Amino acid sequence: MLGATDDLSKFGGRCMRQLIDFGYEGAIYPVNPKRDRVMGVACYASLQDTPDVPDHVGIMLPAHAVPAAVDDCIARGVAFATVFSAGFGEQGTHEAALAQQGLVDKARAGGLRLMGPNCNGLINYVDRFALTSTASINGPRAAPGDIAIVGQSGGAGQVNVMWRAMELGLGISYQVSCGNAADLDLLDYAAFMLESESTRVVLMLAERLADGGKLRALSQRAAELRKPLLMVKAGRTEMGAKVAASHTGAVTGSDAVFERVLDQLGIIRVDDYPDLYQCAMLLRRQRWTRSAQVAATSISGGNLVLLADMGAAQGLQWPELSAATQTELQTQLPGFGVAANPADLTAAAIGQKGAFALAAQTILGDPAIEVMMPVLTIASADEVRSIAELSAHSDKAVAIIWSGCAIDDPTLTPKSLVQQGHAVYRDAGPCVQAVSALTRFSAFVNQNPERQPQRPANMDVQRARSLLPSGAGLLSEWQAKEVLDCYGLRATREYLATDVGQALSLAQKIGGPVAMKVQSPDIPHKTEADALRLRVQGDASVRQAYAEVVANARAYNPQARIEGVLIQEMVEDVQEMLIGLSLDPTWGPIITVGLGGVWVEVLKDVTFLLAPSHPAHIREALAGLRGFGMLQAVRGRPARDLDALVDFIERFSWMAADLSDRIVELDVNPLAVRVQGQGVVMVDALMLLGELKS
Amino acid sequence: MLGATDDLSKFGGRCMRQLIDFGYEGAIYPVNPKRDRVMGVACYASLQDTPDVPDHVGIMLPAHAVPAAVDDCIARGVAFATVFSAGFGEQGTHEAALAQQGLVDKARAGGLRLMGPNCNGLINYVDRFALTSTASINGPRAAPGDIAIVGQSGGAGQVNVMWRAMELGLGISYQVSCGNAADLDLLDYAAFMLESESTRVVLMLAERLADGGKLRALSQRAAELRKPLLMVKAGRTEMGAKVAASHTGAVTGSDAVFERVLDQLGIIRVDDYPDLYQCAMLLRRQRWTRSAQVAATSISGGNLVLLADMGAAQGLQWPELSAATQTELQTQLPGFGVAANPADLTAAAIGQKGAFALAAQTILGDPAIEVMMPVLTIASADEVRSIAELSAHSDKAVAIIWSGCAIDDPTLTPKSLVQQGHAVYRDAGPCVQAVSALTRFSAFVNQNPERQPQRPANMDVQRARSLLPSGAGLLSEWQAKEVLDCYGLRATREYLATDVGQALSLAQKIGGPVAMKVQSPDIPHKTEADALRLRVQGDASVRQAYAEVVANARAYNPQARIEGVLIQEMVEDVQEMLIGLSLDPTWGPIITVGLGGVWVEVLKDVTFLLAPSHPAHIREALAGLRGFGMLQAVRGRPARDLDALVDFIERFSWMAADLSDRIVELDVNPLAVRVQGQGVVMVDALMLLGELKS
Repeated sequence: MLGATDDLSKFGGRCMRQLIDFGYEGAIYPVNPKRDRVMGVACYASLQDTPDVPDHVGIMLPAHAVPAAVDDCIARGVAFATVFSAGFGEQGTHEAALAQQGLVDKARAGGLRLMGPNCNGLINYVDRFALTSTASINGPRAAPGDIAIVGQSGGAGQVNVMWRAMELGLGISYQVSCGNAADLDLLDYAAFMLESESTRVVLMLAERLADGGKLRALSQRAAELRKPLLMVKAGRTEMGAKVAASHTGAVTGSDAVFERVLDQLGIIRVDDYPDLYQCAMLLRRQRWTRSAQVAATSISGGNLVLLADMGAAQGLQWPELSAATQTELQTQLPGFGVAANPADLTAAAIGQKGAFALAAQTILGDPAIEVMMPVLTIASADEVRSIAELSAHSDKAVAIIWSGCAIDDPTLTPKSLVQQGHAVYRDAGPCVQAVSALTRFSAFVNQNPERQPQRPANMDVQRARSLLPSGAGLLSEWQAKEVLDCYGLRATREYLATDVGQALSLAQKIGGPVAMKVQSPDIPHKTEADALRLRVQGDASVRQAYAEVVANARAYNPQARIEGVLIQEMVEDVQEMLIGLSLDPTWGPIITVGLGGVWVEVLKDVTFLLAPSHPAHIREALAGLRGFGMLQAVRGRPARDLDALVDFIERFSWMAADLSDRIVELDVNPLAVRVQGQGVVMVDALMLLGELKS
Repeated sequence: MLGATDDLSKFGGRCMRQLIDFGYEGAIYPVNPKRDRVMGVACYASLQDTPDVPDHVGIMLPAHAVPAAVDDCIARGVAFATVFSAGFGEQGTHEAALAQQGLVDKARAGGLRLMGPNCNGLINYVDRFALTSTASINGPRAAPGDIAIVGQSGGAGQVNVMWRAMELGLGISYQVSCGNAADLDLLDYAAFMLESESTRVVLMLAERLADGGKLRALSQRAAELRKPLLMVKAGRTEMGAKVAASHTGAVTGSDAVFERVLDQLGIIRVDDYPDLYQCAMLLRRQRWTRSAQVAATSISGGNLVLLADMGAAQGLQWPELSAATQTELQTQLPGFGVAANPADLTAAAIGQKGAFALAAQTILGDPAIEVMMPVLTIASADEVRSIAELSAHSDKAVAIIWSGCAIDDPTLTPKSLVQQGHAVYRDAGPCVQAVSALTRFSAFVNQNPERQPQRPANMDVQRARSLLPSGAGLLSEWQAKEVLDCYGLRATREYLATDVGQALSLAQKIGGPVAMKVQSPDIPHKTEADALRLRVQGDASVRQAYAEVVANARAYNPQARIEGVLIQEMVEDVQEMLIGLSLDPTWGPIITVGLGGVWVEVLKDVTFLLAPSHPAHIREALAGLRGFGMLQAVRGRPARDLDALVDFIERFSWMAADLSDRIVELDVNPLAVRVQGQGVVMVDALMLLGELKS
């Protein structure tokens, strides 16, 4: 404990106090040249004087003293240190960033791993060790639980999530506040937590996430282990991103991309801190579902009205109960009519001891039902206990909503039930959110093995790569399409004419009206240069168009290298889409998919996919577009070739993954989606290359 | 108390118990022919035997005995009765509906007003009277507070809202569970609550709302009194509407209309029950705002990140702090740099007694700031108390976020602060929701006087009415447009031709290409009948088109009355919109506004307005369309004439209000919106009339 002191107004005093009070059973070595003992424990003048090499060093010194302390750790052969000190990357200055990187470089070279700086350490309930200043662990040490929490922030992770979760009756295995996370980052701690047998759910509070690949791997491991990852990710709005940046130096990528990608990785994103532990309360019970079909019942009909609404809004389904279930309910509740779902039992079950829980059990036994939400308000202790029994003994999920109290037993509370392992919600909102998270994670785990991207046939990576010039720069449209063609991505019928004679014969070969576009790597936007003509028909028109577009291109950019004029069949009556590739700082190659024109310009109606992508994810992403209806049969418009579109995007995503070392930007815009069965064709494409790296 | 008994397993026993235990100080008369005393109180064989005429009769009898009990009340000259009994309208049968209407008819004829049936009565903390069975008032009677609650449901209103609000430290003035609300409805009770001096906020749990006009009047009174109305309205989803219908026989109108109209009435709609009291906690403090500009500060930076996001998502603005504020902060916190907003004071304020509250006060003193959200986690009692002091003495709004506890005083809790009148939130989510509700209600109250619809000039109601045929049925396009013209609603340049010669000369008069459309009240959809031609130019084409459209119309419907062919200028390069009128079961005439084509067909991108409407509301509604960007300048497209569009909708809304006794349906589709300064014109219009009522 470098910087340990008796003074509780100092960080080093508070950390020392908590380490002792938490009941850590190993040796504690305060290091402070000015003292002999700290809080009754023998103190050492320097790290070199401790009786043996510490497993873990806490550095609670001012920023300027940290580099020397890190040197001391390395000299002593320490493997791990936590740097609490602020004054590094979060300052936002170049100097502070350098100082932080200096610590990391030094530590890594010396075989030392670091937590922090600017952090509030960790709490390990499993092994009874806490190296942190937080007052959230004051009082007797709680028993370890099955929920792990990791975040950059101290206050938010330790108070808003951990302390509040414990207030509800939940138990924690590990909690980490990794601050600037200069060396080990949030995902490293999350990976440890995930592998721990003590942990069933991992809650993450992320201000930034640098390494998308690491999170992708973590999510796969989470699926294998059937342990959900939940995340609050700051920076939804520009304002939030700004505040996050000043808090821990976090720079976040596009939130819209983040949102879609987390979904594809089966990571449950929630909005506010309480959502984390409210969802974990149900997920830790590990009652996985096969569908989103749920039921609820209550003797307070008013409570069911809103629950039905909220459940439906969260994607839960309320199937009708089977005839067999209805018959059984009739036997249990004579005189009760046909039960709806949610089932209002007011008239039939009030005052009948045990009738409510029995009915809930019967409904949950219906093969169509995966989750039961029994709703209690102010109830007898007997009634509450019988519902807890149902929850304890059912192998399906039970999420109890209990807004009130037990009328005849003040010791029976939502908290006491949560401590026994039940999922108890005071309100419908958090309950349906948790049930929705349960059904979504279950579906992810069930589908994940068959949703691993599989390389489609007939993609010639070697040829594609060989077609890429070694230098950086733009490709002309026909060159870009040639590369795309290697992946089975087809363009319209089109040929390059290098003189007007060729243009005439190619136009005749295509037949019907054609488009004519100047091809030049120096003219990315042909419309701007007035270097294209549409719906050209007949020899005279072709001749004139050829002359005009070439002249306009030359006028627009006299230095432009003109490769020729592309003679292209006109594609009409199609749904236009744009398929793009961009490089995201967190995720690497990301595919952007949207409808063309105003859908993108006015509505910003685009969706995002990881590369490579599985067709099932592509279909879900398309279905999430507001304008998805444009691809389906709508009032007089035919359905479009969705299968061909999905195949196109899949191949495109593989190309993005394969060639993202070279392709910096790629837009197929428009991609023409024809009516069902008639495929898709690229009308235009723009490809920008980066330098070939040796 | 008709049906009073000692048996607490019976409704009549529980109501009697609660009435006595609540400490009602007036006389209580149990009526039960089988007993002399009930719970120690003298019992009467019949209502006619009570010593004097009761002010209020509770009817706790089986459904079949209720009509006779109502007769008894009337015979005894009783003014008010509460019918708790179920078995009426909520049954969903015609018989039950008739029985319920029978009660109402009988009561009204006899001068008796009813609460219920199928209800759980009322709790009046102000006058210490409770006529209800609910266990939520068990224990010592709480002091009256300033929040009133009314809903159809018992359990939801009494437990999920009232009991839970009190658990947080809030106080209640009145609570009503009006059940089927056959006679007096939810809005009648809400009106009483609103007028009461004891009440500052009225919370409504609505499963249905029959009378939009009454709610409109109530909202105006709420604005005058500066008392917010908050509402949870069931039936957001089809599922919720279905469950509401079976609970209290509620039939809800379109939820999308509801949502928009509540917004125009300044009624705060929230999703879940807790949102009601969480918002009320701040609103009851009556610190009205002049803008949505807010600030927050904390010594836990992590907490501010999410708060910034959530605030921005709720429409709150985080302005930069003024130079004067910055200077003052520098004096208070030497060494602290420039304060952002939200302001992370971690380094500067930790351990400095009083520094946090002082900084919060300084920031709140900034003229740009209307609301301060100080964020506490686990804090010293001194720190918490100094923030409470700021809240108590500021005339601006303070919404405290306190996720943790007081480290050194277990009696100082969020609840103890709420009991002292402060607004204290455990989490950022409910806090920003409440602050947003405060700023929206404040804005509504401030703007409401100048947002009363004012009848525009040049609208000839008499002439419009005189143009309406007395019979029901469809008007032909040109007739409809003639009526619309009386309100200053202009069509394209167009004339009716009754023979081909007229058609030729009218087309020449218009010049350029024309549209030609058969006019007949019997052919509402001219496209379907192939009875229109577009872009007709030249005598020969006009001649041919005339012959064709008339022939096609005759073939389509040989009985059709053909009034002629409308010769209409072609309108190109415009933004098409649809403006419609429909009659809503709750709200009466409702104006639907949307962009044309796929915007409506695929995106369902429409908004709704009450009739008549103020231009400010119309502008807000238009700005809320997803496709609003289509009316603004977008990449190559010019801005459209928004002023003319707003004027059109305003006049249209007056026409809807004036003539909704006759016009059953009216669609202007498309309305052509030209570029800025060039106005709007109706291209087509369809008007359906109902019978003239005498």
